[in-house]
Amino acid sequence: MSGLFDGTFARGGAAAAVSDPAWIDALLDVEAALARAAARTGLVPATAADAVTRACAEPAGLDLATVVARAADAGNPVPPLVRVLQDAVGPDAARAVHVGATSQDVLDTALVLVARRAVSAIDRDLAVAAEAAAELARAHRDDVVMGRTLLQQALPTTFGLKAAGWLTGLEGARARLLAVDASLPVQYGGAVGTLAASEGSGVDLRGALAAELGLATTPLAWHTVRLPVADLAGALGTAAGVLATVAVDVVLMAQTEVGEVSEGGARGGSSAMPHKHNPVAAISARACARRAPGLVATLLGAMEQEHERSAGAWHSEWPTLGDLLATVGSAAAWLGECLADLRPDTARMAENVAAARDPELAGAVADALTASLGRGAAHDAAAEAVREARRTRRPLAEVLADRPDVDVRSLLPGAPDVGEAPAQVDAVLADYDRRTGRTS
Amino acid sequence: MSGLFDGTFARGGAAAAVSDPAWIDALLDVEAALARAAARTGLVPATAADAVTRACAEPAGLDLATVVARAADAGNPVPPLVRVLQDAVGPDAARAVHVGATSQDVLDTALVLVARRAVSAIDRDLAVAAEAAAELARAHRDDVVMGRTLLQQALPTTFGLKAAGWLTGLEGARARLLAVDASLPVQYGGAVGTLAASEGSGVDLRGALAAELGLATTPLAWHTVRLPVADLAGALGTAAGVLATVAVDVVLMAQTEVGEVSEGGARGGSSAMPHKHNPVAAISARACARRAPGLVATLLGAMEQEHERSAGAWHSEWPTLGDLLATVGSAAAWLGECLADLRPDTARMAENVAAARDPELAGAVADALTASLGRGAAHDAAAEAVREARRTRRPLAEVLADRPDVDVRSLLPGAPDVGEAPAQVDAVLADYDRRTGRTS
Amino acid sequence: MSGLFDGTFARGGAAAAVSDPAWIDALLDVEAALARAAARTGLVPATAADAVTRACAEPAGLDLATVVARAADAGNPVPPLVRVLQDAVGPDAARAVHVGATSQDVLDTALVLVARRAVSAIDRDLAVAAEAAAELARAHRDDVVMGRTLLQQALPTTFGLKAAGWLTGLEGARARLLAVDASLPVQYGGAVGTLAASEGSGVDLRGALAAELGLATTPLAWHTVRLPVADLAGALGTAAGVLATVAVDVVLMAQTEVGEVSEGGARGGSSAMPHKHNPVAAISARACARRAPGLVATLLGAMEQEHERSAGAWHSEWPTLGDLLATVGSAAAWLGECLADLRPDTARMAENVAAARDPELAGAVADALTASLGRGAAHDAAAEAVREARRTRRPLAEVLADRPDVDVRSLLPGAPDVGEAPAQVDAVLADYDRRTGRTS
Amino acid sequence: MSGLFDGTFARGGAAAAVSDPAWIDALLDVEAALARAAARTGLVPATAADAVTRACAEPAGLDLATVVARAADAGNPVPPLVRVLQDAVGPDAARAVHVGATSQDVLDTALVLVARRAVSAIDRDLAVAAEAAAELARAHRDDVVMGRTLLQQALPTTFGLKAAGWLTGLEGARARLLAVDASLPVQYGGAVGTLAASEGSGVDLRGALAAELGLATTPLAWHTVRLPVADLAGALGTAAGVLATVAVDVVLMAQTEVGEVSEGGARGGSSAMPHKHNPVAAISARACARRAPGLVATLLGAMEQEHERSAGAWHSEWPTLGDLLATVGSAAAWLGECLADLRPDTARMAENVAAARDPELAGAVADALTASLGRGAAHDAAAEAVREARRTRRPLAEVLADRPDVDVRSLLPGAPDVGEAPAQVDAVLADYDRRTGRTS
Repeated sequence: MSGLFDGTFARGGAAAAVSDPAWIDALLDVEAALARAAARTGLVPATAADAVTRACAEPAGLDLATVVARAADAGNPVPPLVRVLQDAVGPDAARAVHVGATSQDVLDTALVLVARRAVSAIDRDLAVAAEAAAELARAHRDDVVMGRTLLQQALPTTFGLKAAGWLTGLEGARARLLAVDASLPVQYGGAVGTLAASEGSGVDLRGALAAELGLATTPLAWHTVRLPVADLAGALGTAAGVLATVAVDVVLMAQTEVGEVSEGGARGGSSAMPHKHNPVAAISARACARRAPGLVATLLGAMEQEHERSAGAWHSEWPTLGDLLATVGSAAAWLGECLADLRPDTARMAENVAAARDPELAGAVADALTASLGRGAAHDAAAEAVREARRTRRPLAEVLADRPDVDVRSLLPGAPDVGEAPAQVDAVLADYDRRTGRTS
Repeated sequence: MSGLFDGTFARGGAAAAVSDPAWIDALLDVEAALARAAARTGLVPATAADAVTRACAEPAGLDLATVVARAADAGNPVPPLVRVLQDAVGPDAARAVHVGATSQDVLDTALVLVARRAVSAIDRDLAVAAEAAAELARAHRDDVVMGRTLLQQALPTTFGLKAAGWLTGLEGARARLLAVDASLPVQYGGAVGTLAASEGSGVDLRGALAAELGLATTPLAWHTVRLPVADLAGALGTAAGVLATVAVDVVLMAQTEVGEVSEGGARGGSSAMPHKHNPVAAISARACARRAPGLVATLLGAMEQEHERSAGAWHSEWPTLGDLLATVGSAAAWLGECLADLRPDTARMAENVAAARDPELAGAVADALTASLGRGAAHDAAAEAVREARRTRRPLAEVLADRPDVDVRSLLPGAPDVGEAPAQVDAVLADYDRRTGRTS
Repeated sequence: MSGLFDGTFARGGAAAAVSDPAWIDALLDVEAALARAAARTGLVPATAADAVTRACAEPAGLDLATVVARAADAGNPVPPLVRVLQDAVGPDAARAVHVGATSQDVLDTALVLVARRAVSAIDRDLAVAAEAAAELARAHRDDVVMGRTLLQQALPTTFGLKAAGWLTGLEGARARLLAVDASLPVQYGGAVGTLAASEGSGVDLRGALAAELGLATTPLAWHTVRLPVADLAGALGTAAGVLATVAVDVVLMAQTEVGEVSEGGARGGSSAMPHKHNPVAAISARACARRAPGLVATLLGAMEQEHERSAGAWHSEWPTLGDLLATVGSAAAWLGECLADLRPDTARMAENVAAARDPELAGAVADALTASLGRGAAHDAAAEAVREARRTRRPLAEVLADRPDVDVRSLLPGAPDVGEAPAQVDAVLADYDRRTGRTS
Repeated sequence: MSGLFDGTFARGGAAAAVSDPAWIDALLDVEAALARAAARTGLVPATAADAVTRACAEPAGLDLATVVARAADAGNPVPPLVRVLQDAVGPDAARAVHVGATSQDVLDTALVLVARRAVSAIDRDLAVAAEAAAELARAHRDDVVMGRTLLQQALPTTFGLKAAGWLTGLEGARARLLAVDASLPVQYGGAVGTLAASEGSGVDLRGALAAELGLATTPLAWHTVRLPVADLAGALGTAAGVLATVAVDVVLMAQTEVGEVSEGGARGGSSAMPHKHNPVAAISARACARRAPGLVATLLGAMEQEHERSAGAWHSEWPTLGDLLATVGSAAAWLGECLADLRPDTARMAENVAAARDPELAGAVADALTASLGRGAAHDAAAEAVREARRTRRPLAEVLADRPDVDVRSLLPGAPDVGEAPAQVDAVLADYDRRTGRTS
């Protein structure tokens, strides 16, 4: 039985990428790469490095129960893991284990591998959401919908432009995550960053380790200068914010009184109220995304790290970054499901616009009256007419009909003016198509 | 295999109290209590309520895999749980399942039960830490240690007073948690809080449910007015802050250069550096505690809930409150282990004080010079002498010896003045003994 | 010219209560009270204490420019303030200035005074909002409005019950703030908390100081055990959450498509769109409230304070607590204005309910079909009929009319069932009236 | 009188750059640029645009009191500012004011200008800190200092390497801020993002406006897709974290018991304790930096913005981003002052290292014993000897002298091994010199 809340908060691939087995894999990947890098650098024989690589490739052959049992007392899982590995490879190859490294070297590099694998999963789910947003933008490029500011109906726009806005957010989030992903460096400095246990080949070994793992490198260890963690935190927090803003749009458009979109699928029925169809995917995306800002703050607060290794702040990163990757991944997965099966009700959108043209008339009236009354008074007069119409539940045109200084009939709105909405949608889609390789 | 980082971040009893099995137990406890309360209120037959109680007492007999599988689609685990329970008790007793309730009624009340059980575990661990602090305060009531402000040596105090300060913090945290614990209410309102599905007996049934579960009650459902969650968040965040401030004191006193305390036990060795003995428990307590403020912010931010049930904010509470309970509990457990086996080195404390009496002399000199020079200039003169002593690495007394306007010898400090430290320790311990029932 | 954004973020009385002049007043109130307490305790002559009290009562006579100029170099404003005060009172009375105190004693006690004065202002604004909510609950006890869960129409409730829910939140926030307010203690411990500079009368002087200022006292200084700050943070964060949840309800009910409330007054017009009437007060309350959780997290994170005085965390409290008090106060002021002039449109509420009865019918149908189909299938059948009605834009009754196994006509809803909503409103109002002294 | 706490929290240039006058300047810069861009695009006559530019260049000539007075009621300061500007330029030029724009267009673009100006100030202060760190790294490339992990002495490193680590952090923070700065876009979309009021030239006008202000542009308005704000938040939070980690190192090294650095200057004396010399700049930098994570969380949480303009989340950005810019700028200014006048005590560093060589000996002994005892037992034996030495206060060499299986004399440490510390310092400095244009 997986977790009671995992379907909500551990959706998508990121949660598995930050699980315990994934961490074990990453730690062993680092130790194996470190042995090979040490061999490349000439510090240990290739045969010893091969033995380490083989042992690391078979976690089932290692006494991981002991690692788990001793991790907390050691402060982190690396010290017992190193002993278990050394025991597993035997005395000859043991010297190829953990060459010149400190626990934090291995744990931080594993953290980077875990993060990269989770980011890759998140990116796949974000790409699904982005593709769905692009489809919606393309399909509804010209479908008119009310624009709403401060949750009040304002002026018409197109549903395509809304979706194009979502697309720019999702693609922006992806670009930021991928830029961070590509910059993530290996960690290697030895106990206090001097590389003193690397026999003079530490800088070379760091480079070789980076090459083995496909990571970037840095001129110094970053044991207590946590730029890579901050970069991840920032990009993940940004992605969460984008996911939340799209999700809240869906939730609001799905309101019974608005009715402009609904989620497809069988989800979202209510036991007590069979008529309800809740937008569960958007709601869940929002729930997942809302966990992010607090987690980002914890990671940024943990950047204050003492001397050559922090007494607690470093450790606090592990569960926090894991939770952040998982919850952003889950939000991305939910939003992908939401948008991929979103059902826009363009008829309802059109009805809502039709019912809302009074404001445009008010604007036209204000413009028309400006010449005679001045801008301020014209504006006030139009606003008063709107209030009167609302109060008396009459159409605005009727309220204004008696007014001698304005020819209401001539001002009645024609087709809704959506300005350059379609052209802007086209520009966004052209960018997107270029980036996704559909057009050159 | 339990989790790789669980020894660090899921220590103590709170983590188990927020686990999936604990949640299932709590949900079933609520459904069972609800059935009994409905029987008490006359809404269902006692025999039907008994059947529900029996089914809830045997989670193994329920199809929980289906609950887990369907929870996310339903938005929360209660709808599938209700169906599974109804199936389990058969058609006659099914009417006694979930009487008049909405999913949130059951989930929120279960959240309260989960929180109370976790708080109870946290309190036990805090009590261990408090008792250890009390022992330290009692044992070291008069043992002099340097007081340090802004991380500079200032004036002497006693280690007993430091420990008494820790005790007031830990006891304050406990008092706040227990006050919140005692105030946590049942949730019962039906779909939109009107109790419309409770056949006119909803208010009575709410009271009966509260009585069944030993919870407080409220005049209204609190579906979107989240005072109880905020109360928990505040008290847990406060406890984390207290735990962190004690832990940082231990970490700082354990510094090699200070050497006034060390942690007992076998923990804290370093693979690369056998001489090191890290204060792992204090470090881990700090790591756990640092996760709290961000989680509290998430819970407070989630208080903005819409209408009669929130679209996402409510859901975000579940993992966040669970993580907060577990991490504060883990911090409390670590600090209990830390303080219960803390090894104060009173000889080292005394040495550090002896080496630091120059400042006292400086103060006495400043006072002595005030009559002739005025307060400001006297202060400046003493400060200059301190700088000179430091620069030339000579004792301050020697530097001042040449000065004609002050009789240094008469000002040399006698026993360190710890003011009313012992009396204050006594007052704190008397309070503590009274509260813990040792004295009347 | 006051600040460009002050009308939004510094509304109500709290902002002035945390301003610089208010801080100066509080610092001088503490120094004056300290002199009097020292006189009461017999440490200084009453005449000297009188001189200090007189000087503190006339800030205009003090060289505050010097205090401001030197505060940052000293680390806080108290050291230069003490020198300025000593200069002002002359050499004889100077010994009655700052007796036995450390800077933090004065600054923390001033912080408490500032907080109490701001909380008092916040409470006044919350009381306005609560009274308005009570009026709405009373006036609309029986006015039916759609209840909405997950932003979908659910079942009817009354607007009175919604307002009563707001009232319980606002009154709960007030109760928590006032409880904290009453518990806030004086700070007095001397340089490292031993009271060593208080000539053996430190504990007595602490009590006398508390009495002078009407504050609580503690058995120890709380220089680095920050329970009082945490208590304020928790209660203020809770108040912000309550204010946000009421504000979001207003914003959502004011949506053009919902139209159930609007804000009175001249606020909220739009330059570009004269027809718009934005609920500016609710929006602004929400904006102010949203700043709180991050500020609370900063204060809780700052609880980790080192030894006898923290090197930075303590200082970070000053602007953070000030901002938190001001923004919660501003939110309270806005919500008071919002609710005091809220215009419920009960006709529109009733229309919305009338248009939404289909769900009730669906529930009744599901119940009616349960006997023949079983609960699950009955529920599914009702849900399918609802979808069909929506798809075809026909009334649900019409869709169901052909179904032979259910007598739709007999199930058509009568008056909306709002269950025990009115009785619950009455209970909340009775509580409120009792608390506000209207009834015994 | 500037603010009582401004010397601490509003240091450096950023605070002025986010002040009210700076906001007014930015708003007027945007309106002026908008008029010119509209003229360039052919929407208004150049003469009208010139009139607007002239009016905006003279804020003293505008009725700003009215703007301030009406800002809150309007929801933001732009609507009254537009009216005031229109009045100021007269009816002919009024049509060149605010062409096609919505309030958020102007406010967001002004926010970007304010942020860029503040970031520029922050960068200057960060550059001072970085240059000082570079100087320290260069000067102390080979000066040995104890490396400390988990606040325990570990192995020697060089002070140059510590400073080089600070440099990489500070330069990394600068690089991130400058990258964000260069990407910040203009905002221009009209009421709902369609550019409907821009007479078909909206996209062109947006480009022209970007060119006028030297900003980037975007294919769509980003009214509710807040990537630019998130980018700022992330980079500022990262900078704060770097500043905090350098500051905490200084605070810890300045501890009386460590004594390896002190701050120069007259700051940091203590009234009660003349001997104390507090590292006020580092402490203040830390205090400022600690406010950042909570503010970042608020900004990320505010990314969830509804429809075409958010009802509150948008507004909450203004004070939050302002506070974040000011506090990070203040931290940078403090750290620049701290590092530029930092006084390393290399003699004390060397003494601390000399006193700490026992650990190295312990490591050598553990290595030497590995052949005979195996790695685990050898490690345990060395650790036991260290404990014995500590307990008996004897040198480790003496404790080990009796042991027959190890030749202690041959293992006594020679010069401290700082591995590749110097080479790594050189690499960092070479990078820095290249970036700052000192070498090609």
